[in-house]
Amino acid sequence: MGDMIRDLPAAASSSSPTTRRNQLFLGTFVHSKTREALEYLHDTAVCVDASGTIVAVKVGYDLRRSEAELLPRLGWKVGDVEVRVGEEGQFFFPGFIDTHVHASQYPNVGIFGKSTLLDWLNTYTFPLEASLKDQKKAKRVYTACVRRTLAHGTTTSAYYATIDVDATNLLADICLALGQRAFVGRVCMDREGLCPEYYKDESPQDSLRKTRETVDYIRTIDPGFEIVAPILTPRFAPSCSSEAMRGLASMQKELDVLVQTHISENEGEIELVKELFPESASYADVYDAHGLLGEKTVLAHAIHLSEEEAATIAERGAKVSHCPCSNSSITSGAARVRWLWDKGIDVGLGTDMSGGYSPSILDAARQAALVSRHVAMGLRGQERERAKLTVEEVLHLATRGGAKVVGLQGKVGGFQVGMQWDAQLIGLPLVDEDGGRGGEEGNVDIFGWESWEDRVAKWLFNGDDRNTKAVWVKGRMVHSRT
Amino acid sequence: MGDMIRDLPAAASSSSPTTRRNQLFLGTFVHSKTREALEYLHDTAVCVDASGTIVAVKVGYDLRRSEAELLPRLGWKVGDVEVRVGEEGQFFFPGFIDTHVHASQYPNVGIFGKSTLLDWLNTYTFPLEASLKDQKKAKRVYTACVRRTLAHGTTTSAYYATIDVDATNLLADICLALGQRAFVGRVCMDREGLCPEYYKDESPQDSLRKTRETVDYIRTIDPGFEIVAPILTPRFAPSCSSEAMRGLASMQKELDVLVQTHISENEGEIELVKELFPESASYADVYDAHGLLGEKTVLAHAIHLSEEEAATIAERGAKVSHCPCSNSSITSGAARVRWLWDKGIDVGLGTDMSGGYSPSILDAARQAALVSRHVAMGLRGQERERAKLTVEEVLHLATRGGAKVVGLQGKVGGFQVGMQWDAQLIGLPLVDEDGGRGGEEGNVDIFGWESWEDRVAKWLFNGDDRNTKAVWVKGRMVHSRT
Repeated sequence: MGDMIRDLPAAASSSSPTTRRNQLFLGTFVHSKTREALEYLHDTAVCVDASGTIVAVKVGYDLRRSEAELLPRLGWKVGDVEVRVGEEGQFFFPGFIDTHVHASQYPNVGIFGKSTLLDWLNTYTFPLEASLKDQKKAKRVYTACVRRTLAHGTTTSAYYATIDVDATNLLADICLALGQRAFVGRVCMDREGLCPEYYKDESPQDSLRKTRETVDYIRTIDPGFEIVAPILTPRFAPSCSSEAMRGLASMQKELDVLVQTHISENEGEIELVKELFPESASYADVYDAHGLLGEKTVLAHAIHLSEEEAATIAERGAKVSHCPCSNSSITSGAARVRWLWDKGIDVGLGTDMSGGYSPSILDAARQAALVSRHVAMGLRGQERERAKLTVEEVLHLATRGGAKVVGLQGKVGGFQVGMQWDAQLIGLPLVDEDGGRGGEEGNVDIFGWESWEDRVAKWLFNGDDRNTKAVWVKGRMVHSRT
Repeated sequence: MGDMIRDLPAAASSSSPTTRRNQLFLGTFVHSKTREALEYLHDTAVCVDASGTIVAVKVGYDLRRSEAELLPRLGWKVGDVEVRVGEEGQFFFPGFIDTHVHASQYPNVGIFGKSTLLDWLNTYTFPLEASLKDQKKAKRVYTACVRRTLAHGTTTSAYYATIDVDATNLLADICLALGQRAFVGRVCMDREGLCPEYYKDESPQDSLRKTRETVDYIRTIDPGFEIVAPILTPRFAPSCSSEAMRGLASMQKELDVLVQTHISENEGEIELVKELFPESASYADVYDAHGLLGEKTVLAHAIHLSEEEAATIAERGAKVSHCPCSNSSITSGAARVRWLWDKGIDVGLGTDMSGGYSPSILDAARQAALVSRHVAMGLRGQERERAKLTVEEVLHLATRGGAKVVGLQGKVGGFQVGMQWDAQLIGLPLVDEDGGRGGEEGNVDIFGWESWEDRVAKWLFNGDDRNTKAVWVKGRMVHSRT
């Protein structure tokens, strides 16, 4: 792969990590204070040191006061500090966390016909994934995917690649080069008869050996797993042998890394799991029996869980990635986020491309709100009201919720001292006085009389990548709209 | 209003209607052939005369052949004809029809909290609508709304304005000036106790007189109702007196214009209608008994209809505007499009801003596909499969379906000789070879190996106004991205 790596794409920022400076951000900052409430910090200064860590958050500081009081207190010289001031109406927001996304399926977004999970895999998904053993094609696809999601403010992604080691390593290279925080997983699928012959691991041993190769490779390019980390990835129970799952479970304990898989997405899939694992009480029990259910486990979908399964998942501390766009698109079902929360399960959002068509976690948050209303339609009275998710709740899912799902709580997802600067700058244009060409940059039209809460709601529902003016990961600017 | 009208916004095209020339469009044209199938016409020439009417559609014609054979046959001189060639990967598509949209609610898009219909009306909607008696504010809001929807390829809209005559007339002026085909309705709401005191017609007579004023006004600005036409608009049964509804029904018969209202959107609303009209068998029966159910009636929502109501609506030939974005957002329910079709009812799409947050009929089509899958989730077996709408079906709803709903079938919605040139040019950018900055213009990433069917699916699911390169109504270019 030597040649390909030397030729990796460059990020938006020209500054290399080693030459990074201290930074001062000024303006309005919005982030989740609790699951139910956003906090609006106006006239605020946030100082980020050269390592990308937030070292001060001070309300009531403009540039003058920051230079006079704040920077000296930090021992920073005014001329050495990079300053970014949010313009009128702009605000800084934490970067989004995509807790479930198949980078390898990116070219198929929007292409799913009337299929559901099992036929969708065979018709659309496996052929494309298999084709990415062509490194040139993999590079094009992965680069487009990482660029696109960065442009939508996704600062952290939990990726499924393919079974191919070189292409998986290439995805890790691309994330590191473009600066997106990523968990990169080589897909394990070795079960005879259920994986297509043209796209499967040769044996359980092959699954484990190749997985370890990608872990080792990622350690060579990012030894501390600061930006890119491995994630163990048994595709889902029907495609994995028991031996492979047990091997991955012990590898997880040895390496203390994340593990990701799918659970209870589709009724046909659940039936299949019952047939394949007659000794297990449930789908969740299959993973539990194989040692795969723990605090570092990310379970995608979790739509049709029983009460018992939810209790097991909660007890083990495993997390759920809610993928509303995918679940509606391929008619999987409507996951019950409030119900999962009530069980004590942590939830984040996933685009699940290409089961989901949208690369945007903002869109996933929007669709989480809509799907919660479809869940509500099936309920009555107080339960119906409760099922609906608010603007604040879906934006929490998109940031702090997702951070917890991938084990980065306290590190990303909000603006607090000690956390890292994974952030986006949002701009919502004002309609000019005669209704004319003011709001050309995106679909959000601000008339000027809206409260901050209403502006954020407008952004949630009509915002897109045009409103994301700049994106930073660990202090490094990784995307900007010129 | 004199001053305001003189100062109306200008459309994208500098050519006034009187100086318009014959036009030749070349490239790929895609439109609905049947409800189930799109037709792809490649290497095709479409000739549009100076009045905006399509006079030739010829497959297998490039510029040279068109100039050599086609133009002479039409008696057109080559130098006098305006030519637009669709670039590689671009295609012409019929303009979208928005069969239900409240222009007056445009500033509220995305702002609805956890409300449902009746509290949403009182909390968000009536105060905003009432405030548009301020003509300056109305001009700003309506201009922004018409510009925004044109940019999304909406060439025809069925608008609700407000109860205010001057502001309603202003909306008609703006549509005419900007060139959007529109049905403009002054909202009738006169029922004591159910309309807010600050926002209601004084009496049934006041409702009818003011409605007639707007009809007369529109006749002065567009005598043949070629671009802008009036539409009678009893808001919905709970806000209208029987006398007003009967008066509007006879006005409809006298003038032979469209009428629009809401039906069966929300369960609380349905209960209210039962209470208010105890003598009626159903919600549909209320309109039927008042003479408002006919072939020129556009009924928005129609979610919770009974079998009997559907039979009545079908028998009368009334049409339904399906508003999936709104219905999910304010938890109204999931309308059953396949079921409506099975009953023999014609269906189109509505954005229903601001119950719906999106200004885009492409997005409405996308959400119609998703909502149909939520309908499917509640069904089993063959019924479940059937409930799902295909890409082709939702794009039919957005064009020919909508045209029929507003009585413009045979005039707009497709590319055939004798129809008018209401069209949009769609461009889907190609990802460059290293996955880099090829696909910056919008969110659709084309890799080059996709079939035309897959390209259209990608556009449906990830397309936005950035892919709509130019828009024409009746031959006039009314929007273009520079």
